[in-house]
Amino acid sequence: MAARIITLTTDFGLEDHYVGVMKGVILGISPGASVVDITHQVIPYEITAGAFLVAQAYPHFPPGTVHVVVVDPGVGTARRPILLQAARQVFVAPDNGVLSMVYSREEKRKVRVVTAERFFRRPVSRTFHGRDIFAPVAAHLATGIPPARFGKLVRDYLHRTDFDRPVQTGKRIWTGAILHIDHFGNMVTNFRPGDVPGLAEGRPFEMAAGPYQIAHIARSYAECPPGEPFLIVGSSGYLEISVNQASAARTLGFAAGAPVEITVY
Amino acid sequence: MAARIITLTTDFGLEDHYVGVMKGVILGISPGASVVDITHQVIPYEITAGAFLVAQAYPHFPPGTVHVVVVDPGVGTARRPILLQAARQVFVAPDNGVLSMVYSREEKRKVRVVTAERFFRRPVSRTFHGRDIFAPVAAHLATGIPPARFGKLVRDYLHRTDFDRPVQTGKRIWTGAILHIDHFGNMVTNFRPGDVPGLAEGRPFEMAAGPYQIAHIARSYAECPPGEPFLIVGSSGYLEISVNQASAARTLGFAAGAPVEITVY
Amino acid sequence: MAARIITLTTDFGLEDHYVGVMKGVILGISPGASVVDITHQVIPYEITAGAFLVAQAYPHFPPGTVHVVVVDPGVGTARRPILLQAARQVFVAPDNGVLSMVYSREEKRKVRVVTAERFFRRPVSRTFHGRDIFAPVAAHLATGIPPARFGKLVRDYLHRTDFDRPVQTGKRIWTGAILHIDHFGNMVTNFRPGDVPGLAEGRPFEMAAGPYQIAHIARSYAECPPGEPFLIVGSSGYLEISVNQASAARTLGFAAGAPVEITVY
Repeated sequence: MAARIITLTTDFGLEDHYVGVMKGVILGISPGASVVDITHQVIPYEITAGAFLVAQAYPHFPPGTVHVVVVDPGVGTARRPILLQAARQVFVAPDNGVLSMVYSREEKRKVRVVTAERFFRRPVSRTFHGRDIFAPVAAHLATGIPPARFGKLVRDYLHRTDFDRPVQTGKRIWTGAILHIDHFGNMVTNFRPGDVPGLAEGRPFEMAAGPYQIAHIARSYAECPPGEPFLIVGSSGYLEISVNQASAARTLGFAAGAPVEITVY
Repeated sequence: MAARIITLTTDFGLEDHYVGVMKGVILGISPGASVVDITHQVIPYEITAGAFLVAQAYPHFPPGTVHVVVVDPGVGTARRPILLQAARQVFVAPDNGVLSMVYSREEKRKVRVVTAERFFRRPVSRTFHGRDIFAPVAAHLATGIPPARFGKLVRDYLHRTDFDRPVQTGKRIWTGAILHIDHFGNMVTNFRPGDVPGLAEGRPFEMAAGPYQIAHIARSYAECPPGEPFLIVGSSGYLEISVNQASAARTLGFAAGAPVEITVY
Repeated sequence: MAARIITLTTDFGLEDHYVGVMKGVILGISPGASVVDITHQVIPYEITAGAFLVAQAYPHFPPGTVHVVVVDPGVGTARRPILLQAARQVFVAPDNGVLSMVYSREEKRKVRVVTAERFFRRPVSRTFHGRDIFAPVAAHLATGIPPARFGKLVRDYLHRTDFDRPVQTGKRIWTGAILHIDHFGNMVTNFRPGDVPGLAEGRPFEMAAGPYQIAHIARSYAECPPGEPFLIVGSSGYLEISVNQASAARTLGFAAGAPVEITVY
């Protein structure tokens, strides 16, 4: 049997011992686990950024994968650790909305509150639940302990739906936002072509992003002249504002969370 | 049997081929090894930073783990490669003090100078002992070759004790320093509550950090008002100066090494 | 049998889900593979930087290793995915010159164009061939599928030779360039001592780098006074301009690609 995979998505960065320590804890409990970093560069405390990144990653992992997500400004408070079963995979995270985009995609899901302290590292610190709760729970899951042993099903978990979809704000107008800015400066919007009637069918449209008006969906980066922003359907299915071989975010002066608007003609 | 774990702590950064090459050398010698990065972002040449980071990491790894530590401004000179056995784990590093905080915690220890050149990659370069000495020695250790085969026990290794503990500088005054600033801007001091009589018992105190006076030890980040520095017992047991959801280091304008002072009343 | 090794060299950075997704795709196809990051910090779109880094890394990996190289400004255009067999290892990359320094070192080589779409993830996106083509092809190679099954041998692949060797530009003058600037600020030139007659034998020489004249090849970093640039034979065999415990690139104000000139006396 192949080693179980455990992925890590955090805002811990890579300059400290934090990520290494989580892996030490995991390998101490589940020696054969294969630990994969999704990213540790989530903008600190930005729950929606973490929500976006894990939701783009998990569909590409095999059944049985355990995903650990730790973007956790409320560490040490009463916010609960939760365990999600969906898409034949398992997720452990704080109950602060960081799994919202997984919930939105997976109607068949079970959410549990993790209460079985015997699977925690003791004593549990006030500041590093990644090490003391999330890593050991994931490692025990990877050894084959069934999710039901970790805690009861709950329905009152936090599912934020305020950021991952555009809303119709006029007869022919939809208002959305920049979900994420990637390493290349591509600005991932929360628009998917199918979200706006007519867009996928090729109706003329205009996206307003600050002072910029963009009306072209390109088929590849390289077909576009340098310096000029264009739209492209990115690898996750969202419309992205890009500039060929340059940072669109720097060209437009935009940050994650900034609004964008589509008008269809 | 589970694969042996080899951890890496270096100041090599991630933008070059250096870390990948060390892993290639390791896997060529010890194909089943599980290589875990602690960090490669130690501030270049900062031996005390490397000393801090590896000392926070190793207690969380299982017995038999081999830790490679390469912060090595003296590479290519006469400084010796050493091998430390302690806490049922093994460490390989240059003899420049980078293992000092492990020595301080582990009274039962054996230190060897690594002289068995048959375990080195040949020829040994002048600039990259991570590849030519430390990685192959660690990999051979991971295959089960006993430490005694690598060189003789020594007593004259470098154990620096000048940075990891506060010193009493007045009747009720202890002077310490910032050991490390983490990804979130938390400033880890070298004070542990037990180091200062009365502190762990709740006696009133004040920590002076530049113009700031801090007299409160919080129980969680989230209980503190934004913008205001407070103390918290961090996940490694040291007092940390933090600001809720912001960088304490930026708020205070401090760097690692800066002095702090505690007065107990 | 040991797990097959797959290495990754990209310009994807570490702040997104891209690298994690490639690993998910790989482990879904080849569950026992051991995935090693060379670097994901290649300067975006800089093909020569990627070419340098993978060429420094592969000689240190065992036979059978599969190297994935994705620095791919032409993603989504007609540029072809290729597969290189050389040095008992396999490389998959876009045909844009990024394997040029491997070609230059390995006369015995076979290059194929990858056309067997059954090994791709479907549908193939326009923007992320790392996920859809290069990762799955590498994973299938790691499961033991022979390279010939992926496509036919070609001779018209792109082998750039304009950047990795100095050229003689005068009777006693050779003109080269900075190939790479590393994490420490060391400036790796494209000069190897053997490239310039007399240099390896110790003839007097001068390297001109902007306003600086350097005439000394040091044996170790530590033997040189602080602040003064010197040459050293780096771990890859190239002459590097360094400054002891400081960044030579910052001291000299140089970037990758800048010209340097050697005159032998």
